[in-house]
Amino acid sequence: MRNFFTILILLFSLNFAASQTDAEVLKTIFDASLTNGKSYEWLDHLSNRIGGRLSGSLNAERAVEYTRKELDSLGLDKVWLQPVMVPKWVRGTSEFAFIETEPGETLSVNICALGGSIATYVEGLKAEVVEVSGIEDLKTRDRSEVEGKIVFYNRPMDPTLINTFSAYGGCVDQRYAGAMEAGKLGAAAVLVRSMSHKIDDLPHTGSMSYGDLPNSERIPSAAISTRHADLLSSLLKLNPKIKFYFKQNCRNLKDVQSYNVIGEITGSEYPNEIITVGGHLDSWDLGDGAHDDGAGCVQSMDVLRLMKNSGIRPKRTIRVVLFMNEENGLRGARKYADVAKQKGENHIFALESDSGGFTPRGFSFDCSESNFNQILSWKPLFKPYLIHYFERGGSGADVGPLKGDNNVLAGLRPDTQRYFDHHHAASDTFDAVNKRELELGAATMTALVFLVDKYGINPIQTNQQFKD
Amino acid sequence: MRNFFTILILLFSLNFAASQTDAEVLKTIFDASLTNGKSYEWLDHLSNRIGGRLSGSLNAERAVEYTRKELDSLGLDKVWLQPVMVPKWVRGTSEFAFIETEPGETLSVNICALGGSIATYVEGLKAEVVEVSGIEDLKTRDRSEVEGKIVFYNRPMDPTLINTFSAYGGCVDQRYAGAMEAGKLGAAAVLVRSMSHKIDDLPHTGSMSYGDLPNSERIPSAAISTRHADLLSSLLKLNPKIKFYFKQNCRNLKDVQSYNVIGEITGSEYPNEIITVGGHLDSWDLGDGAHDDGAGCVQSMDVLRLMKNSGIRPKRTIRVVLFMNEENGLRGARKYADVAKQKGENHIFALESDSGGFTPRGFSFDCSESNFNQILSWKPLFKPYLIHYFERGGSGADVGPLKGDNNVLAGLRPDTQRYFDHHHAASDTFDAVNKRELELGAATMTALVFLVDKYGINPIQTNQQFKD
Repeated sequence: MRNFFTILILLFSLNFAASQTDAEVLKTIFDASLTNGKSYEWLDHLSNRIGGRLSGSLNAERAVEYTRKELDSLGLDKVWLQPVMVPKWVRGTSEFAFIETEPGETLSVNICALGGSIATYVEGLKAEVVEVSGIEDLKTRDRSEVEGKIVFYNRPMDPTLINTFSAYGGCVDQRYAGAMEAGKLGAAAVLVRSMSHKIDDLPHTGSMSYGDLPNSERIPSAAISTRHADLLSSLLKLNPKIKFYFKQNCRNLKDVQSYNVIGEITGSEYPNEIITVGGHLDSWDLGDGAHDDGAGCVQSMDVLRLMKNSGIRPKRTIRVVLFMNEENGLRGARKYADVAKQKGENHIFALESDSGGFTPRGFSFDCSESNFNQILSWKPLFKPYLIHYFERGGSGADVGPLKGDNNVLAGLRPDTQRYFDHHHAASDTFDAVNKRELELGAATMTALVFLVDKYGINPIQTNQQFKD
Repeated sequence: MRNFFTILILLFSLNFAASQTDAEVLKTIFDASLTNGKSYEWLDHLSNRIGGRLSGSLNAERAVEYTRKELDSLGLDKVWLQPVMVPKWVRGTSEFAFIETEPGETLSVNICALGGSIATYVEGLKAEVVEVSGIEDLKTRDRSEVEGKIVFYNRPMDPTLINTFSAYGGCVDQRYAGAMEAGKLGAAAVLVRSMSHKIDDLPHTGSMSYGDLPNSERIPSAAISTRHADLLSSLLKLNPKIKFYFKQNCRNLKDVQSYNVIGEITGSEYPNEIITVGGHLDSWDLGDGAHDDGAGCVQSMDVLRLMKNSGIRPKRTIRVVLFMNEENGLRGARKYADVAKQKGENHIFALESDSGGFTPRGFSFDCSESNFNQILSWKPLFKPYLIHYFERGGSGADVGPLKGDNNVLAGLRPDTQRYFDHHHAASDTFDAVNKRELELGAATMTALVFLVDKYGINPIQTNQQFKD
C-alpha cells in the first residue's frame, strides 16, 4: 500500500514536470535550491569537519568516503569509486623565513612552499636576492647575475583586467615554471609573489614543476605574501645586498591510490548519451578548500539531487564526477576520460564548477559555433536569475580531457572579484562562502543540465562517440 | 614657468580625452579606478576612524568635516555644506533581553532597539508573546489576543526572490509600522524578526514610526536576531505561555543642526544643467556603515575625482551630494530638493549608490521610455565590464525628491546576495567590503555620468527646469 502511494506521488510529480514550461521548470529548480538546497550543508562538512584535502592525504580519503556516502543516500541509479594513482606531496612542518637587512637584523616574513617543490637544506638557505618581473625578464639576465642567488619573481596580477582569472593567467607561469627556469641559470632558490590582488599577509600556494630538469638543477621554490613581496622589493631598492633566509621541509613521496567519486541517474530514453557535471575533490592544504573546489563538488552533487527533487526524470544519463587531483596532476580527470574512451562512452556535455562559490554570472563554452548557437537560444530563460554571461571560451581543467569533435564542454562562471583573495591560501574557508550565492550556482548548473538533457546537443549526430 | 607646464599638460590631457572614443574613455575610467582609485582609502577612514554615524551624533558631524575636507582637496570648483535640521535618536546603553521558559529559567537572546522607538520602563518589560506572520495577520486577531502582550512579527524574507531587496520590501512593513499597528490593539511592545536571510546572532536595526499615534499607545519596539527569532518561535509552539523580558533605554531628542556635503565641477558649456551623484553620509550605529552607505558616499566622491584624473572636462555641472539622514528621516534629501526648486535648478540626472559596495551589475532608472531608450543605447559600452543590468524601476531614496517631468533618476545596482547579511547590523563593517568591487562600482558610476554629460538627457528640451 505504501509503495502504491509512492508510485502515485512519483507519477504525479513526473507528470507535473513534463507539463511545465521550461521557464516554470527553471523556477522550480531555483526555488528548490534556495529553500531546500543541500550544497551549503555538504560544504560545511567538507570544509569544517574534513578540511584541506591534498591528493594522497588521509583527508582526501575522508572526502572520498564522505561524498560517496552522501551520494549513496540520494537514491541515484549508480554510485561508484573510480581508482586512480595520484602524486603525493607533503608540506612537512611550517615554513620559516626572514629578510636579513644587516647581519643580525631580521624581519620575519610569511612564505609557503609551492606544491611539488623540494625542501631546503635542513639548516635552511640564505642568499642574496635578485628581483625579476617574470620569466621573460629572467631570460634577459646573465647567469652571473643569478647564480647562487634567490630569484624573486614579483610580477603582480594586472588590476585592470575585469576577469581576475585573466590576471591570474598573466602571471601564473612564474609560479609554475619559475624554479625550472631559474634552476637552469644556477639560482639557489625562487620566491614567487602570491597570486592575489589583495595586499595582505597570506602566502598562496599552488603547483610548480621542474619539468625534466636533472635533480642537480632542482631548487626550492616558495610563495611570499603580497605585503612581504612589496616589503622585500622596497628593501632591495634601498640595499640590493640584503639577504633572504628560508627553510622548508616539503617532500615528494610515492604515488598512492585514490579515487574519483561518481554517481549517476541513468537516462530513461538515451542512457548512452552522458551529461557530466563536476568539480574537483582535492584541494590545497592551507585553507579548507571551500571555494576551491569544495563549492564545485557540492554544487555538482546537488544538481542530481535537485533534478530528482524537482520531479525531473532525465532522458539522458546525468553523471556527477568529483575529480581527484586537479591541483597537482590532473590524474583523476585523465583517468575518467581514458576510461570513457575505452568504453566508447558518448559524452555529449560536460560542465565543471571550479571558479569559486560566488554569485553565478553564466557559463563559458568550449564547442562549435552551431552548438553554441543552440545553447544561446536558452539564454533568455536565465534572465530572471540575472544570469547573463554566455560566451565561448574555456571550460574547466577536469572536463578538458573529455573534449570531442562535436560535444560541448562548459564552465560555470561566477563573479570573480573576491576569488583570488582566497585561492590556495589559508583564507579559503567556509565562512568566505555565502549560502545563497552557492545555492544560486547549483541552481544555475541544474537549469542548464535540465535543458541539455531535454533538447540534447546537436541531435542530428546524436550517436557520435567520444573521441580523443 | 611651472604654471606654463601645468597648462600644457592640462591642454594635452583635455585634448586626449576629447579625441578618445567613448569605449576608450570608459577604459581610461575603469583603469584609473582599479589602479588609482581613492574610494577604498576614504571608506577605510569613514568606517574605521569615524565609524557608525547616526544623524545628529557627533560621529555624523565628524563625517561631515572629514568628507568636506577631502572634497576640498580635490580642486573642485565649489565645495559647501548645506544646513539641514535632523532628528536625533539615541540608543542609550546596550539592550538586554531573555526568554523565560519557567519562572527563573531564562535563555539570553540578542535584540536591539529599532530606530525611533521609545524605551521600556527602567525595570524593563516582561510579558507573554503572541507570534504573528505580519501586519495583515495581526489585523485578523482580536484585541483580547494581543492586549498586554508582546507582538512578535516573525515573517522571514522570501528566499526565492533573486533580488534580495524585493525580499526586504516584502517584510519591512512589520518593522516600520509594526509598533503602530500593535499599539492600536493595546500590545505592550513589539519584537521584529531581523531582516536578513542569514541565520545568525545579530539583530538588525532600522527605522520605525508611530505615525500620529497618541503617546499613550506608543510601545517599545525591538529587533531580534534571526536565530533567536527561530528559537522563540519554536519555544512558543511548545509552550505558548512563556514570557519575554527586555529592557532598552533609547530616546528621541530634539532636532539638531546637520549638513549635506556638496561639491561640484561647474559645467564648461551648460553649467545650468546639473548631474547629481550621491550616497547618504549618515548610517546606523551598530556597525560602521561601510556598505550602508559609506560605500555609496566614497564612490560618489570618486566619480568627480576620476573624471578630473581621466582628463574629462564636463560640459554640464557634475555635483556630488552626501545626503544626511537617509536612515531615519530623509531630511537631507528633502532639503536638497527644496533648495534646488527654490533656485530653479535644472537637475537633468541624479544617480544614487545605496545598495552596498558589491560588484556592480548595472543600474535601474526612473524615467520616461524615450529617456530610457537613449540610455539603453549606451549599454554595449558597458559589456567589457560585465555591466548588464539596465532596467526601469526605482532609483534611490535620496534622489527621489528630485523627480521632475523629464529628468532621469538612477540607482547603481550591485550584486545583492550578501547585502542583507550586513544591513543595519554590527556586521556592516569595512572588512565586508572588497576593494575591487567597490572600485568597479565607482568606475561604473563615473562611466554613466561621463556619457550623460557628453550627450545630455533629452537634448531637445534641454532647458526644462526642475519641477516638484
